[in-house]
Amino acid sequence: MEKEIIDMKIDIYEENQKLGEKIRAELSKRKILSVNILGSAGAGKTSTLVRLIERIKGIPVTVIEGDLETDIDTRKLQSLGIDAYQINTNGICHLDSPMIEAILRKKDIPDGAILFVENIGNLVCPADFDIGEHVRIVISSVPEGSDKPYKYPVIFQHTSAVVLNKSDLAPYIDFDMPYFVEGVNVMCPGAPLFEVSAKNDTGFDALAEWIIAERKKILQI
Amino acid sequence: MEKEIIDMKIDIYEENQKLGEKIRAELSKRKILSVNILGSAGAGKTSTLVRLIERIKGIPVTVIEGDLETDIDTRKLQSLGIDAYQINTNGICHLDSPMIEAILRKKDIPDGAILFVENIGNLVCPADFDIGEHVRIVISSVPEGSDKPYKYPVIFQHTSAVVLNKSDLAPYIDFDMPYFVEGVNVMCPGAPLFEVSAKNDTGFDALAEWIIAERKKILQI
Repeated sequence: MEKEIIDMKIDIYEENQKLGEKIRAELSKRKILSVNILGSAGAGKTSTLVRLIERIKGIPVTVIEGDLETDIDTRKLQSLGIDAYQINTNGICHLDSPMIEAILRKKDIPDGAILFVENIGNLVCPADFDIGEHVRIVISSVPEGSDKPYKYPVIFQHTSAVVLNKSDLAPYIDFDMPYFVEGVNVMCPGAPLFEVSAKNDTGFDALAEWIIAERKKILQI
Repeated sequence: MEKEIIDMKIDIYEENQKLGEKIRAELSKRKILSVNILGSAGAGKTSTLVRLIERIKGIPVTVIEGDLETDIDTRKLQSLGIDAYQINTNGICHLDSPMIEAILRKKDIPDGAILFVENIGNLVCPADFDIGEHVRIVISSVPEGSDKPYKYPVIFQHTSAVVLNKSDLAPYIDFDMPYFVEGVNVMCPGAPLFEVSAKNDTGFDALAEWIIAERKKILQI
């Protein structure tokens, strides 16, 4: 049975990957930059998104919120006037391409927009699933500790950028910054690292600039 | 193929569950209390374990550490003189019964011991896998935010107790304690909630007493 399970897994990954590539091609054609936001439960994915979107002016923004069961974050975003759609996975630990495809067929995302997809809070499973994104951002946070790049290598190895949130808590926590930075550099060499505090609204200008630069690449395709 | 995958999943869960029950029966017979420690990445599972074990005197303690790839936590525990064994899942997002069975066959855990198993840092997948434990503890932490019981309901619904760690950070974080407590009461009514700070070493006496009381139940089987 072991062999059968492995084959089945490969099938699932391959099918997901193929559809991811199809989605990415469609979004590129429509000049929509797709950003897959990953991070642990409570890393501050939604609050980072809010701070980031505040800085993106004159570009339409759509958010897809992935959650196991609730729509707490989607309602938070909608209350701020952000165009947000909910995916509830009913317990599944990651988003996949068919879920994104379903939203693209149902919802009207404007050409030229930036599409942010907030994945399920989980540093393991979402790493393995392409959802048709152009870039990935892993959000880590100071209270999670400085060893995360080493302990969750796959998700860090496949990211385009790293955000370290909750820098406001650094004075109260034994966080070894050089160890964290070294981990990021080892796992994803060349990926930019943005130190932010969603609470104090600091550090987001550079992150927004990076996103805008990534969008320019899509516009030029 | 969808139907085939679902059947396969049910097989995996059922086989895991059966072996979990076998392990639990064996451990009960040997008067070993097995404690499954669950929580998100960076919730403070290892540091909670260290504080807890310091308070368990005169009872042999063994720890099984689950990690994707590293042995950082096992080395930390061993450096404190704690009997600890490593399971590396090579990217798998949860521990399962066969992994625990393999350790039980290889390692000599004394009869009458307390066996702590630190699961993979993940609030989703480990909830679905029995590992032959008698009790489960979910460790949440103040910086993760007060909405975790609502957003990760399955893991909270199947726990015996909840630990809220990093209470020392409460003055610096907008944490809605009544909302969290209500979430715990709704998801796992009757499960005790222990507020602790691994950093300041506070709140662990009550948690240790609860563990000792759970062990007494096993001794009386």
